[in-house]
Amino acid sequence: MPFILHPRLAAGGFDFGVHRGCRVLLKNNAIFPWFILVPEVGEEIEDLHQLDAATYQNVTRAIRDVSCFVSAHFRPGKLNVAAIGNQVRQLHIHIVGRSPGDPAWPGVVWAFEGKQPYDSASVEEVRAAFEEWIRSGHP
Amino acid sequence: MPFILHPRLAAGGFDFGVHRGCRVLLKNNAIFPWFILVPEVGEEIEDLHQLDAATYQNVTRAIRDVSCFVSAHFRPGKLNVAAIGNQVRQLHIHIVGRSPGDPAWPGVVWAFEGKQPYDSASVEEVRAAFEEWIRSGHP
Repeated sequence: MPFILHPRLAAGGFDFGVHRGCRVLLKNNAIFPWFILVPEVGEEIEDLHQLDAATYQNVTRAIRDVSCFVSAHFRPGKLNVAAIGNQVRQLHIHIVGRSPGDPAWPGVVWAFEGKQPYDSASVEEVRAAFEEWIRSGHP
Repeated sequence: MPFILHPRLAAGGFDFGVHRGCRVLLKNNAIFPWFILVPEVGEEIEDLHQLDAATYQNVTRAIRDVSCFVSAHFRPGKLNVAAIGNQVRQLHIHIVGRSPGDPAWPGVVWAFEGKQPYDSASVEEVRAAFEEWIRSGHP
């Protein structure tokens, strides 16, 4: 069965393509540098530990790569990395750059209502930086 | 420098020993089956992606093992797995069994104030099950 991105994830972010078998999304909330990875696996998989060992390793490497990009590009004070999925059950992993003084600090972004959509120039800037990061072999 | 568990982590949970280089804690909140893994690494490491590749792989395997235990033993509806650390900066990973109908559902446990300490018999029951899980080679 072909992989279908959950409509709520698709609607909430910008698709940056596939890295190590994971769809990479930039969440459309410019308040935080916030990426979401969606492993392109069957919908019966809702939790990371349900992945077979090889896919699990691949997904955790993708998490590391995108974490390194967020850290290097946005220089946040801290990363928050989480697989939650209580509402959208399709397996997805949040990678969020956090900084003391951001509007949700020190709370978690998943309990924070604030939103600020990106303008398209900013999205393209982040996309170009991400693509260059991948292309240059940083991961 | 010897590894020293952060006093807030030490005070908030029961020490179940070391698995794959990570201290395993059962958080003292019986409302949720909630484990915390603390990789025994230098205090300069605050985010998962800062671990060297081999240690990162080992830690992600430990996360998988403990996730499998929580899933098999407590049979929650969902796992929430997260590295946050905005307040306690020592690298630590939450592995929390969640179920529709638990008091924080569908919100996240990090924005939930409720607490219910374990009685010691229950802690020893979970400890015995965890140790048996490790001993039997389930991981």
